[in-house]
Amino acid sequence: MDMDPPLQLRVFNLNCWAIRYLSKLRQERIGLIGDTLGQEGFDLALLQEVWSERDYCELKQKLTACYPYSHYFKSGVIGSGLCVFSRYPILDTFLYQYSLNGYPYMLQHGDWFCGKAVGLLIIKICGIIFHVYVTHLHAEYCRDKDAYLPHRVVQAWELAQFIQHTSKGADVVLLGGDLNMHPGDVGIRLLRGWTGLRDSFADTERFEGCEDGCTLVPANCFINKEELQPFPLGIRIDYVLYKGLSRFVVKCDSLVTTTGTAPGKSIPYSDHEAVIATLCVKPREEAKGSSGSAVEPELVDVVNEARTEVRVGLHTAERQRYSNGRMAILALLLLLLQAAMGLSSLVGWDSPQPFPKFSFSLLSLLATVVLLLSMVLYVFHTIEVKMLQGTEEQMRLALQALQDKLSSM
Amino acid sequence: MDMDPPLQLRVFNLNCWAIRYLSKLRQERIGLIGDTLGQEGFDLALLQEVWSERDYCELKQKLTACYPYSHYFKSGVIGSGLCVFSRYPILDTFLYQYSLNGYPYMLQHGDWFCGKAVGLLIIKICGIIFHVYVTHLHAEYCRDKDAYLPHRVVQAWELAQFIQHTSKGADVVLLGGDLNMHPGDVGIRLLRGWTGLRDSFADTERFEGCEDGCTLVPANCFINKEELQPFPLGIRIDYVLYKGLSRFVVKCDSLVTTTGTAPGKSIPYSDHEAVIATLCVKPREEAKGSSGSAVEPELVDVVNEARTEVRVGLHTAERQRYSNGRMAILALLLLLLQAAMGLSSLVGWDSPQPFPKFSFSLLSLLATVVLLLSMVLYVFHTIEVKMLQGTEEQMRLALQALQDKLSSM
Repeated sequence: MDMDPPLQLRVFNLNCWAIRYLSKLRQERIGLIGDTLGQEGFDLALLQEVWSERDYCELKQKLTACYPYSHYFKSGVIGSGLCVFSRYPILDTFLYQYSLNGYPYMLQHGDWFCGKAVGLLIIKICGIIFHVYVTHLHAEYCRDKDAYLPHRVVQAWELAQFIQHTSKGADVVLLGGDLNMHPGDVGIRLLRGWTGLRDSFADTERFEGCEDGCTLVPANCFINKEELQPFPLGIRIDYVLYKGLSRFVVKCDSLVTTTGTAPGKSIPYSDHEAVIATLCVKPREEAKGSSGSAVEPELVDVVNEARTEVRVGLHTAERQRYSNGRMAILALLLLLLQAAMGLSSLVGWDSPQPFPKFSFSLLSLLATVVLLLSMVLYVFHTIEVKMLQGTEEQMRLALQALQDKLSSM
Repeated sequence: MDMDPPLQLRVFNLNCWAIRYLSKLRQERIGLIGDTLGQEGFDLALLQEVWSERDYCELKQKLTACYPYSHYFKSGVIGSGLCVFSRYPILDTFLYQYSLNGYPYMLQHGDWFCGKAVGLLIIKICGIIFHVYVTHLHAEYCRDKDAYLPHRVVQAWELAQFIQHTSKGADVVLLGGDLNMHPGDVGIRLLRGWTGLRDSFADTERFEGCEDGCTLVPANCFINKEELQPFPLGIRIDYVLYKGLSRFVVKCDSLVTTTGTAPGKSIPYSDHEAVIATLCVKPREEAKGSSGSAVEPELVDVVNEARTEVRVGLHTAERQRYSNGRMAILALLLLLLQAAMGLSSLVGWDSPQPFPKFSFSLLSLLATVVLLLSMVLYVFHTIEVKMLQGTEEQMRLALQALQDKLSSM
């Protein structure tokens, strides 16, 4: 294939933080994001946390001329928040919902209700098949005691597996999203190691933006400065990753992040910084062969590390399931006892000091609520246990295959 | 590639109906299935409804010598019930859980608790990459008034999309399972039309077994004869489907089903009949080109028909969500009213005829339970609505792509 000059692709990625009634200056910011996308004319805009479909429709209406193709991925109670605007036709889409995504009773965190997922779009640009993935993983609320780490590791594993299994027909793979993982975290090492995806920040020759490529920075007025205290420069959790397959190589010509405010404005687009990557796609020189087929021996350690995290999560989930089962049994016993007492009073076996009726009823109300809730939670944690066991088993199989490959090299 | 003689593959598929404490003669039948698999030495055995991991482990232990490789897919509360025994190494596995799968409150049906899914196994046989899919879709409990039809259509669509997106690297695609759809149903026409999979029963030259290839037959002693009354010959809902990609063609040399009892025994393996396909894989002759790339104009009608079913489901789900929302609001109002009455009696504003305390408490117990349940169901049906909307949108996009392809032909 002759491509002269090589294909240049400008990709915009942003976690928009657009929660109705909760996010500050949401409407102004959505307006601002729409204006910027319209003016800049990127090839692709990958957005996360566009929770309201009304906001998506507003953007879509504004951007029809510049981005005639777009897609919103629906899932969960609120919606996945994931959407994509494209200058090129979207040929097909597919959604994979992560099997684990926090807990429905953690209402203050709310990730469970979002149905976190990875969306795949197949886009053909100048005859090159792009598999574009957009995702948003479970948030990290407390780094020191991260209760969601096993779920995030499972999500990273499922993301890696999903990309590997669905990208065989692609020429170029592109992943953008808020991965909620620092660059050195086990999940991102697993994702990169397993898929061979390259990090635009690590690979680019020209970078402009926040130091270390951070995308949550203290300079952003919507950021809780206290939460970022252990990281004075901020943290990098939003990524544009890519790889060329078979006949193509991809390079990141330049990478830009916003630096606390939208360019030329007094407010930022979001509480996250936008990541803008300019990628260059050109045909692979035959001699160099296909990339990504070599197995790095370090990957074995990474999969092992991830597997340990999954095991820790499994242990916790089993404990939680056990407590809920025990609670359900206790509530059931109490209800049975009350039923027996009620029956005995009906047939005239009144005890000398009857239990006050009001307290009696209140107690049965409480027992019923506890029974119902703990039964639902028992079922929920059983599903969690099954999924963690399944992932652990998959990782074991993957490790075996890896070791076989390494020993035959 | 030179393959002389061509590769012959014997595939065994069975819905094992192995529900602990509920399925009749479960242990005997699992023993019998294990014995048959051991004696016959198939290349692949695709099993469904092995709900108990203990049964899987028993089979695994028995079959280690003959089938050194096996995998059990974990999901849902009970487990997916899907497992595979293979004579050849399993290189990788991946699980996709269907986004819709019945209702948790339909305890008598219980499909929701199984976490219905499609499992993918990648197996290399004589240098040929097989993508083997095993699945079990939502059951049909009443054909005339099938409340689960929209969910099953969504599952068929997700199955078709999953196969299409994950099979690009395969030489041969093989799908076995209990699809719970008659051969003419919209879901199976959608699945076959979208993926280009061929039906071993329709394609084979040599068939031996129940008339019309039925896999639920009145001759089976575990079958409820009344339920099969409209179909005197039985129905065909278990399938082995296949296709060759790029360099290979697959043919079904022969297909056999059991006929109500296990061969030479007095009891059947299960309430379903086993399907045994002998497939022949050989290199494609270059001149004939790759199959499956041509688009059939009828597919547009099939996708449209499926989309209509999804819309019907969407309408029902929206109505159910609305009723649950209304019920939650009513229960909340009742609780607020009771709280106000309770407070007024506390501050001494006793009404002349006070409400009996016991009935008062019982009513609040009822209101609390109703409030909790209807809130949970509201959330559940909201997720259902989102997924149906998402599928409908995906189908719209697919139709557009189909029509573009057809008009450019």
